[in-house]
Amino acid sequence: MTVIAVLPGDGIGPEVIQEAVRTLDELDLGLTFDVLEHVNADTFLASGTALTADDVARIQRSDAALLGAVGDPRVTTPDYVRGVLLRLRFELDLYVNHRAVSLLADHLSPLKDTKRGAIDCVVVRENSEGLYAGIGGSLRQSTPQEVALDVEVNTYTGVSRLLDYAFDIARSEVCMVDKSNAVPNGGRLWQRCWAEHRGRHPGTPTRHLYVDAAAMLLVADPASFDVIVTNNSYGDILSDLAAELGGGIGTAASGNLNPTTGFGLYEPVHGSAPDIAGLNRANPVAAILSAALMVERLGHGDAAAAVRSAVARAVIQRRCTPDLGGSLTTTEAGAAIRAEL
Amino acid sequence: MTVIAVLPGDGIGPEVIQEAVRTLDELDLGLTFDVLEHVNADTFLASGTALTADDVARIQRSDAALLGAVGDPRVTTPDYVRGVLLRLRFELDLYVNHRAVSLLADHLSPLKDTKRGAIDCVVVRENSEGLYAGIGGSLRQSTPQEVALDVEVNTYTGVSRLLDYAFDIARSEVCMVDKSNAVPNGGRLWQRCWAEHRGRHPGTPTRHLYVDAAAMLLVADPASFDVIVTNNSYGDILSDLAAELGGGIGTAASGNLNPTTGFGLYEPVHGSAPDIAGLNRANPVAAILSAALMVERLGHGDAAAAVRSAVARAVIQRRCTPDLGGSLTTTEAGAAIRAEL
Ligand SMILES: CC(C)[C@H](C(=O)O)[C@@H](O)C(=O)O
Ligand SMILES: CC(C)[C@H](C(=O)O)[C@@H](O)C(=O)O
Repeated sequence: MTVIAVLPGDGIGPEVIQEAVRTLDELDLGLTFDVLEHVNADTFLASGTALTADDVARIQRSDAALLGAVGDPRVTTPDYVRGVLLRLRFELDLYVNHRAVSLLADHLSPLKDTKRGAIDCVVVRENSEGLYAGIGGSLRQSTPQEVALDVEVNTYTGVSRLLDYAFDIARSEVCMVDKSNAVPNGGRLWQRCWAEHRGRHPGTPTRHLYVDAAAMLLVADPASFDVIVTNNSYGDILSDLAAELGGGIGTAASGNLNPTTGFGLYEPVHGSAPDIAGLNRANPVAAILSAALMVERLGHGDAAAAVRSAVARAVIQRRCTPDLGGSLTTTEAGAAIRAEL
Repeated sequence: MTVIAVLPGDGIGPEVIQEAVRTLDELDLGLTFDVLEHVNADTFLASGTALTADDVARIQRSDAALLGAVGDPRVTTPDYVRGVLLRLRFELDLYVNHRAVSLLADHLSPLKDTKRGAIDCVVVRENSEGLYAGIGGSLRQSTPQEVALDVEVNTYTGVSRLLDYAFDIARSEVCMVDKSNAVPNGGRLWQRCWAEHRGRHPGTPTRHLYVDAAAMLLVADPASFDVIVTNNSYGDILSDLAAELGGGIGTAASGNLNPTTGFGLYEPVHGSAPDIAGLNRANPVAAILSAALMVERLGHGDAAAAVRSAVARAVIQRRCTPDLGGSLTTTEAGAAIRAEL
């Protein structure tokens, strides 16, 4: 029996997760769902803790986890997001954030040049260290003399295992993105690991870009990218940018993975979108594609491929939400995809 | 007598700076040029030091400085760039990096939606702290146990004076970009300074975005931005992205400014482009617009406006380099702009 821990979360999270779960049901893969409905901002605001050690253990006992979105405008400190999403990434050592973007239909590209605009890439984002480690502090906090320090931590272990994954999944190229011309210590380490990995994979074409140039080139020539491997912070930015170029954040799937244990926490790249929460207007595509990524990594490659092509067919026919050029609601858009299955 | 220190630098730097200087000559503003030709990678490779304390003093004695580009593929460590460009930014406390982007002609936008695509914004990038401070180190360097630390430093002084500048130059809105939902210490400080500044400028509309959302929105709705104020690292990335959306990196001007002393170091946002160096193919527009920003801040607003409209006219007529849809060389493109003056 395969158990999926489901964390609907905040905002549009529950709405899009519902469509993802319905789609998984349709696939008949014998999945059972363990829903942790309470992991959300309401619980955080009421009790100060949205995710307990018991919850973490429960998630860990499952075979994979599917998450909607974490974030709420009522919470302005990082404690909540750090206590749920980042806690899971760090405690379960989900060291790869695999963020896949591919343009589902030409009309979705914001770019004029449709040939160059046909993005189809994976951002392999470091997910267990970097600026997200939460290391640092403030001196003279809340005074006009405050000095705030946040430490970007990069380890040989962390960078190497990430690069392993990037080379593993590469189809045509690995592009490493850093800022080694300005940020000295992490820069030197990334460059060293990069040189080692290139040496070990002489058959894989590679490219190196500074992060500012990578942001430009994603716009100028998105189709030229295959795998982009980078640190936690640059991966956050570049994956959202890539998603926008691939038809908007409503279509980008992701998996927080530990390729060693095989465990993964899958989530749409988009956030909780509080402005449209509860209105049956959110786009379920990213959640459904995240579920497809999940079943693919659970060994159901055919089912994943079927979902992906059903999504593509629905979107090309504009049987989708307004952000993708359609006029359907969340539930209708989910049903339209299932009808294509 | 107004003295301009000129640092042609590397790659295409000398070529584009030559066109900027010729354009300044044409304006007849009584400028004299103190050219520091030796500040480049050749000098660094030969002697280990491209910029000496004497050079810094000489630049400091001038009224403003104009720089081409710093960077060379033969130098793979950050020491060279840190020893020239970052040294000047830090030692002269040029705490604002003012990066202006505006779409010169519709045909230059990479975006389909020409209405939303008409970007006209300034990225106000923190330029004196953040991840660029060069603070940190490595434990067990060059071993498989290496831990590399780079500290992102944010100070109340640094953030506040930057926000002062952003509100000073705002025309319609100030948008602050951070990652306070994930990076706790700097995030808290930026949010505090932001709340204070908004309170002091109740008449200025404001917006806050996380950096990932900002990257997306720059693509989805570039025309909605006026002033974007952010830290050193995000400013690096977002300004290059904005430049690409504004017609390419070949058009983006910048000034590294100390608004308190009035001193500024002006430079095109683009780099040294070693692949086309020496071929008379580089686009001189960014260098010429950087020179315009410089003379504007030296009190010659009319001359700056004249240069900007000459550039726009030349580009609209496609009297420009191939990256902007023309077929001119660097020197011809410079001459075409001067012919419009
Ligand atoms: C050369 C590099 C260190 C520099 C920076 O990141 O500041 C450049 O990209 C820039 O934006 O001026
Ligand atoms: C919510 C936030 C902390 C998170 C991140 O930056 O990792 C989100 O933007 C994401 O990309 O999953």
